[in-house]
Amino acid sequence: MSKKLTSRAENYSKWYNELVVEADLAENSAVRGCMVIKPYGFAIWEKMQAELDRMFKETGHQNAYFPLFVPKSLFEAEEKNAEGFAKECAVVTHYRLQNDPDKPGKLRVDPNAKLEEELVVRPTSEAIIWNTYKGWIQSYRDLPLLINQWANVVRWEMRTRLFLRTAEFLWQEGHTAHATKKEAIAEAELMNNVYATFAEKFMAIPVIQGLKTESERFAGADETYCIEALMQDGKALQAGTSHFLGQNFAKAFDVKFTSKEGKQEHVWATSWGVSTRLMGALIMTHSDDKGLVLPPNLAPNQVVIVPIYKTDEQLDAITEVVNGIIKDLRSKNISVKFDNRDTYRPGAKFAQHELQGVPLRIAIGSRDLENGTVELARRDTLTKEVVPLDGLVDKVEGLMTRIQEALFNKALDYRDNHITEVDSFEEFKKVLEEKGGFISAHWDGTTETEDKIKEITKATIRCMPLEGKLEKGVCVYTGATSERRVLFAKAY
Amino acid sequence: MSKKLTSRAENYSKWYNELVVEADLAENSAVRGCMVIKPYGFAIWEKMQAELDRMFKETGHQNAYFPLFVPKSLFEAEEKNAEGFAKECAVVTHYRLQNDPDKPGKLRVDPNAKLEEELVVRPTSEAIIWNTYKGWIQSYRDLPLLINQWANVVRWEMRTRLFLRTAEFLWQEGHTAHATKKEAIAEAELMNNVYATFAEKFMAIPVIQGLKTESERFAGADETYCIEALMQDGKALQAGTSHFLGQNFAKAFDVKFTSKEGKQEHVWATSWGVSTRLMGALIMTHSDDKGLVLPPNLAPNQVVIVPIYKTDEQLDAITEVVNGIIKDLRSKNISVKFDNRDTYRPGAKFAQHELQGVPLRIAIGSRDLENGTVELARRDTLTKEVVPLDGLVDKVEGLMTRIQEALFNKALDYRDNHITEVDSFEEFKKVLEEKGGFISAHWDGTTETEDKIKEITKATIRCMPLEGKLEKGVCVYTGATSERRVLFAKAY
Repeated sequence: MSKKLTSRAENYSKWYNELVVEADLAENSAVRGCMVIKPYGFAIWEKMQAELDRMFKETGHQNAYFPLFVPKSLFEAEEKNAEGFAKECAVVTHYRLQNDPDKPGKLRVDPNAKLEEELVVRPTSEAIIWNTYKGWIQSYRDLPLLINQWANVVRWEMRTRLFLRTAEFLWQEGHTAHATKKEAIAEAELMNNVYATFAEKFMAIPVIQGLKTESERFAGADETYCIEALMQDGKALQAGTSHFLGQNFAKAFDVKFTSKEGKQEHVWATSWGVSTRLMGALIMTHSDDKGLVLPPNLAPNQVVIVPIYKTDEQLDAITEVVNGIIKDLRSKNISVKFDNRDTYRPGAKFAQHELQGVPLRIAIGSRDLENGTVELARRDTLTKEVVPLDGLVDKVEGLMTRIQEALFNKALDYRDNHITEVDSFEEFKKVLEEKGGFISAHWDGTTETEDKIKEITKATIRCMPLEGKLEKGVCVYTGATSERRVLFAKAY
Repeated sequence: MSKKLTSRAENYSKWYNELVVEADLAENSAVRGCMVIKPYGFAIWEKMQAELDRMFKETGHQNAYFPLFVPKSLFEAEEKNAEGFAKECAVVTHYRLQNDPDKPGKLRVDPNAKLEEELVVRPTSEAIIWNTYKGWIQSYRDLPLLINQWANVVRWEMRTRLFLRTAEFLWQEGHTAHATKKEAIAEAELMNNVYATFAEKFMAIPVIQGLKTESERFAGADETYCIEALMQDGKALQAGTSHFLGQNFAKAFDVKFTSKEGKQEHVWATSWGVSTRLMGALIMTHSDDKGLVLPPNLAPNQVVIVPIYKTDEQLDAITEVVNGIIKDLRSKNISVKFDNRDTYRPGAKFAQHELQGVPLRIAIGSRDLENGTVELARRDTLTKEVVPLDGLVDKVEGLMTRIQEALFNKALDYRDNHITEVDSFEEFKKVLEEKGGFISAHWDGTTETEDKIKEITKATIRCMPLEGKLEKGVCVYTGATSERRVLFAKAY
């Protein structure tokens, strides 16, 4: 079975990498920077997808699918977007391999099969989508256009880490078109809200909604909304972004509509996305030195039942009782797995389910049958209790809710205890060094200061919180006057 | 609104292309051979995905995700597979663009960012997956390994058609590993059966299960099972394939396991897939000159309700009744859309829903309110009837089943009337020319004869039916003895 994980205190980064692999979530592949998402990890992602997809549809969006490739001439049309992604994109230049005349049994690119125009593997789909929207939008009656796509994208990152930063990743990208600026901004805010709700209600991760500074904005956006979460090691993680794109893409691709008043106008746009990076946030928010801890709302199996037996007769008797429990749990929409494999001992099963973060384990042995009890083990608190079989299902149902809430509250406590207001740069550096977390400080609003602070401390402005109150002060670095505090942190 | 479609009799191919675009299913993109799947088309694909995914999980499979790219050295490892796909694969050679020094504002491939090893955009994932399985399989306890992936793949086809043959397409690919040859063959057969069940029960498309001849087999397979359907123009369409891969990939990637007896053995493999090509099959099986006809089991909206009104008061009164109908229909799991757009007239709405194949339309006007009736219009038969509001929901529920069955039976009649046994090559050519469909004929079993017949007639052997009875005869082309008939047809 699996080996013991490095502890978080010893080496947080190593703990993370080991956990991802040992818990069967993902692993590195033969392709530089690309991961394989293993079945157990993918099952969690599927649960996330299902909830998000439901939320997108409830807010009026439809799914569609656009090409993987972006012809270079379209890619370069929106200048800032192109500039932002050109340095890290995979480029298809040929459409055929042939036998290598110099190396028998090997293939090489066929020099006669060079594409006239190179194709960029999408790092994001604004270019190909806005080129398409040009044909779809003529009149105000075609607006708003509210579309989402589930897709893979590629960004040739130099330093990659499983889930957090990979060359290929899975995500969803919403792309919407609106008649007015006001509607587009409302959409960008709505979807940032959807992300925040999803993070808090399903992932049990408290997030701060805010706006990015100019230098942290999406390439091609006028404004980037984000949700920012705090990991257990005091580093922030951007968990989702929603962009107000102004008329930048509409102008680059000449997408106009005839208004009710008969005028030709460029449309207003948003885009928004979350990715498999959320898996990293989920892992780093709740897990412990024993492995993954999953919130019930996203666990592929919310409950696992392990039989403790010596003889086949004992197993039969246990199985009969377990079948009743399973039926009752499923009738309450609680997912349950009966781990009756005869190739592993109970101890190995306990270890595996602990490592894989199953929220609740039920162990049931022959003595339990006699006593009319079972043993419950909560993954989040690592506590056990023996409870009567009578009323078990109600008990489990209640626990699902309580565990979900407990995980959120624990993460919220940690996060709230790691937002520190500072009023001097000395204090800024000291808190960052000794405590980590978010630092709430005044900033003079210039990119120059932001860059300087980053250079000195490695902390960046994670966001200007939407709920932040106005409060006059002076920039922690330059002493210039400032209207409000922003949140700094070191970040993933 | 939409223009009238070319009729099938006039030009079937043109009818198909127009229908796909006019019914808002898909369109060509700026990328050669790649399509955009529009929201309405994608909603149908999502329904297919949901059913298939459920069927895969019910048969014990789990989803996972593997990289988009296959390093050339892995791609070429299984020789036949490589040979089969090398001629049509997109190849990534660079990982960066830079400003073009000769053309201000334009980008070019950065010559300093050439990959050491080229990456093939997956045309199918056996190579990258089997390279991964090597790390996952050590013991008989790791088997069977039953995994499916939903993904995009790229094959650089020269002649493309929306859904039927596109450079990029969406599909699922199952990849399984087994301890014995027998188990692997059983898996390949099981999944071909799943595809047949899906085609018949959900798509309402009758299919023939069979085996491919050597020349039509998947590159790298020992045996390819398939489901073959017949389109309205008498051409066959391969709707799904399931491959028994023998130990070919296990040997190419050295994937061995320790058996219960402690021996090291290569594992046995299958792979199986269906793709967005199914959309083409769905369209061409049921649709008519008025547009798409959808089976209720796959229609995004099974019922559409169109109000007929002049005044707002009338609309209010109708809406009240409609809300009750909607509630009742949804309680029976019937999906329904109330098309109360005030930007289109009823006639335009009727035309749109007819074009988009909504199985049942309910029209309700002020006179209907007085009479306690509604008008039902069936898309498949283009028949209308006025029915009482009382009992409407039961009526609709019954119609959903009847429409589904009627579509299947109509397609089955057509298909069965287009399987012609022939015993001479003259007859073969005459039937193919005048009637089309499947031709059941004796074949001598050689690739040479198969190729000759294809050269002369353009017909290929679609499959050797699994249920075909043994029947001695002589090859329709060479006169050599033959044990059984096979099915020939021109095919998509």
